Amino acid sequence: MDLFIGMDLGGTNLKYALGTENGEIILKLSRPSFADQAQNKIFENMFTAVNELLAEAEKRGEKISAIGVGSPGSIDFEKGQLIGSTPNLKSWTKAPIKKNLEEHFNIPAWADNDANVMALAEARKGAGRGYKNILCLTLGTGIGGGIIIDNQVLRGAHYSAAEVGHIIIEYNGKKCNCGNRGCFEVYASAPAMVARYRKKLRRTGVAYAIDELNTKLIFKKAELNEDLAKETIYETCEYLGAGIASIANIIDPEVVVIGGGVANAGAEFIQCIENAVKQYSIKAITKHLKVVNAEMGNDAGIVGAILLAVESLKMVNSL
Amino acid sequence: MDLFIGMDLGGTNLKYALGTENGEIILKLSRPSFADQAQNKIFENMFTAVNELLAEAEKRGEKISAIGVGSPGSIDFEKGQLIGSTPNLKSWTKAPIKKNLEEHFNIPAWADNDANVMALAEARKGAGRGYKNILCLTLGTGIGGGIIIDNQVLRGAHYSAAEVGHIIIEYNGKKCNCGNRGCFEVYASAPAMVARYRKKLRRTGVAYAIDELNTKLIFKKAELNEDLAKETIYETCEYLGAGIASIANIIDPEVVVIGGGVANAGAEFIQCIENAVKQYSIKAITKHLKVVNAEMGNDAGIVGAILLAVESLKMVNSL
Repeated sequence: MDLFIGMDLGGTNLKYALGTENGEIILKLSRPSFADQAQNKIFENMFTAVNELLAEAEKRGEKISAIGVGSPGSIDFEKGQLIGSTPNLKSWTKAPIKKNLEEHFNIPAWADNDANVMALAEARKGAGRGYKNILCLTLGTGIGGGIIIDNQVLRGAHYSAAEVGHIIIEYNGKKCNCGNRGCFEVYASAPAMVARYRKKLRRTGVAYAIDELNTKLIFKKAELNEDLAKETIYETCEYLGAGIASIANIIDPEVVVIGGGVANAGAEFIQCIENAVKQYSIKAITKHLKVVNAEMGNDAGIVGAILLAVESLKMVNSL
Repeated sequence: MDLFIGMDLGGTNLKYALGTENGEIILKLSRPSFADQAQNKIFENMFTAVNELLAEAEKRGEKISAIGVGSPGSIDFEKGQLIGSTPNLKSWTKAPIKKNLEEHFNIPAWADNDANVMALAEARKGAGRGYKNILCLTLGTGIGGGIIIDNQVLRGAHYSAAEVGHIIIEYNGKKCNCGNRGCFEVYASAPAMVARYRKKLRRTGVAYAIDELNTKLIFKKAELNEDLAKETIYETCEYLGAGIASIANIIDPEVVVIGGGVANAGAEFIQCIENAVKQYSIKAITKHLKVVNAEMGNDAGIVGAILLAVESLKMVNSL
């Protein structure tokens, strides 16, 4: 049985795994990603990781057919290379991921944006199974996204599609880190939710230290029936609904898969988002639209990277 | 040479044409669409139109290979049938366009939403020639849209993609006809532009009768250097920029094609929109993005319908 390597490069860790053609993980490992070091150090670290997995495959008497990598940043999929820079890996600008891996190992390699890779994992093995048109959102410090159209990852003309966090939902609204105003993630990300709750608390005279407040605490308080927490969650769902409805009005998906830290808040939160999406979008689109929790959790990145390798190799071989 | 029939069904007229495999129009005709009559009357009218073109083809010693129809409303492309209703043709609910034409003429027929058909025309023969990822917008009473991804029309899971006029650009903003608030078209359609100008005029004590004001007049006044008109156009461009940027952030197109009555205002208006789009969107996406005028004008609908017939027939024959 031929095996595949999947790598999920993050700002903190490099996760890497040996997997099958079906995206099943055989062995899963992790090491620091050395994100603050020079580009060649990050590559050397990746080479070490691949060598470990090659040794493991050999021990099992198996061969590695292809390598897939999910990385932050916009990635030219044909070249497997970063187009610009990415904030959490300063030296990673224009990193030629595909080229360096292929030259070093003489094994076909592919690289794609991490959100696209995660969307691929949810589409094939997770909450998007059985659907052909999927919107995946990651709710965290920002709002990331991956889109599947007709079973294929939507990469866009400049490999920058699905910048969902920066659609404008409030014209001339609050400032965003991107330099614009009124972006979706300014109103519906985890920090936005925390800021909203803090503001409400202040009005009642309660003040939390910055690091004491997080979305987990807000959901906990809501469970305990605290009105301000419940209000905060409801308002966040409304903004999430408006943003997701806008995206749904454009791509008309069958299912919206919500992942990221905030998404584990439970079925009620997801239902609250679905209600808001249905309210804010065109009925023809959302009558049958489902909003669901992501299922792949922390494995989404490596499973998606394995599947990227599997599917890209199949496509090349079929040409 | 085999010929094709294209039909463009509107609220006022049914345009119909005989065309070649390359989308060239050989003969172009028009008749009232009888939009206020019963569904079978509208079909009978379409049958009469097809018969005229069949007679014309026979006179030329040619055969009709397929029929394409662009119609208002969401259309199940596989069935060639309206999914729900459409406001300007009251009896047109669930109209089985493909089935009725095929049964009546025994010629393969396809139907698609009129905005999709127009986008197809611009993509193959108009301002989108040579591009694979295209956003087409029609600025008029509302804002309509068609999207081409990787050379294919994006129809969506429920055949309702590209409802671009109803993305939300101002959360909890002005009321829209769709029932929601803050929709793109409430701020950037022709009536929105006229209302904005009227409001500015009122402040200066000038009042126009409702039917005296239109976008053409505003552009004329701007040409004559009237400040209020110039302001109105600039503000409209800003809203257009915000809405188009949101869509571009999601699908990452190479080109945005602007059609509809308002779009003929000239190169300066288009440049003003492009500037705003570049300001409001992610740089990676819009650095190379072009905003251009539609080129197909009033022929977009029939040329698109001819191409729909040509390409659908080719696809079926290649299966």
